[in-house]
Amino acid sequence: MISKNQAKFIKSLQLKKYRKQAQCFVVDGEKGVKEAIRSDFELVQIVCTESFAESSEALFPKGVEVIMASEKQLSQISSFQTNENVLAVLRQKPNQIPQIGASDFVLVLDDIRDPGNLGSIIRSADWFGVRKIIASPETADFYNPKVINATMGSFSRVSFGYTDLVELFSDTDAKVYGTFMKGSDVHSFSFAGPAYIVIGNEGQGISLEVERFVTDRISIPGVEGAESLNAAVATGIVLDNLSRLKK
Amino acid sequence: MISKNQAKFIKSLQLKKYRKQAQCFVVDGEKGVKEAIRSDFELVQIVCTESFAESSEALFPKGVEVIMASEKQLSQISSFQTNENVLAVLRQKPNQIPQIGASDFVLVLDDIRDPGNLGSIIRSADWFGVRKIIASPETADFYNPKVINATMGSFSRVSFGYTDLVELFSDTDAKVYGTFMKGSDVHSFSFAGPAYIVIGNEGQGISLEVERFVTDRISIPGVEGAESLNAAVATGIVLDNLSRLKK
Repeated sequence: MISKNQAKFIKSLQLKKYRKQAQCFVVDGEKGVKEAIRSDFELVQIVCTESFAESSEALFPKGVEVIMASEKQLSQISSFQTNENVLAVLRQKPNQIPQIGASDFVLVLDDIRDPGNLGSIIRSADWFGVRKIIASPETADFYNPKVINATMGSFSRVSFGYTDLVELFSDTDAKVYGTFMKGSDVHSFSFAGPAYIVIGNEGQGISLEVERFVTDRISIPGVEGAESLNAAVATGIVLDNLSRLKK
Repeated sequence: MISKNQAKFIKSLQLKKYRKQAQCFVVDGEKGVKEAIRSDFELVQIVCTESFAESSEALFPKGVEVIMASEKQLSQISSFQTNENVLAVLRQKPNQIPQIGASDFVLVLDDIRDPGNLGSIIRSADWFGVRKIIASPETADFYNPKVINATMGSFSRVSFGYTDLVELFSDTDAKVYGTFMKGSDVHSFSFAGPAYIVIGNEGQGISLEVERFVTDRISIPGVEGAESLNAAVATGIVLDNLSRLKK
């Protein structure tokens, strides 16, 4: 059974400071763990109930440490009270900035702070096949359990790296599309890669220092009187409009 | 200054049970309160700092009770630690089911459980002018502070009611569009009102008892390998595709 120290270590990974120290993160629940096993992330540990181990042991990669825990213990060390059968500890990957290819579209996040939004954006990017994502250093932590959980497994299928956006854009010939309240109608916009698609912060939108690199302003038409869209929803809509043109 | 009992009452409104008892709810922060003042919701109380009262008193409707509180007191009674200048207590409206008009589109939520998703959906519906929303009784509470906050003021511009969806659909001639993993491509779908647009639960999708009323299945095309979309993102994308056809 799981020891106090093991439980303490896994719980500590809820905090960015300890995740960074250990270069590890946690994936909760059956679905996420199965995606993690299929992915190229290094599996450090699997913690699960005996009944889960019995039914799923065949899936576990050879050599990975498997630790037994009761349902109660699992829900205590997990970030989610609803997790009662399995979690996995994975090794973080070194930070690497995805390179933009000849006709690529790369999603760029300018300070997306809400972990739920970040996870949901990664999930949409995976859905629409825009699997290179670059985030500003102030964006929420990719390895935050709320982010990982909200990706519904998509965390394992995208290339994601953090970098200073001014540096990134200072050194590129690619177009830089920005989403704004006013700009070209996304319904008739001619997306043409290579291009970066910048999504702004939830409250402030795209920052001034990033805005000066924007070559094309895009907006999602709405009716009068309404305020704005959630950042993750706006990202999904832009990617859906991009995917229409790929057909 | 705010009394202990007043503070206790406002804090109690974070829980559905007490919101229901008092038939009140709280709107936090300057933006939301200003939208609330402009709306047709009945204002019960405004709680704010003295400096906020000085700068904004002209906006307060006549006769409304204004209670002073320190920044610290406000952040203690608010659902959001970041709220430090104003909140309002509003009267709930009686539950009323929006009626579908001759060429209307009405959004129907089949057990959207996450308050953030619900708020984000209401915000998108407002943005795209689909301002009639009907929710199943199991859907998150419209008056939950996390919902109200996530709507970014849009709560005040939509008609929202709860009802049993089987009863609703048993008694209508309108079309019932449902979002599924497989169905007609939303990019080429001919939206034609009057129609209900049903959004399913985050995990389970549209329930079996609702599915049998669906006249048209719609889906959002994605690439292979990806899993699904967040319910609020999917709703935004469907509404954006609907709004294209209204042009």
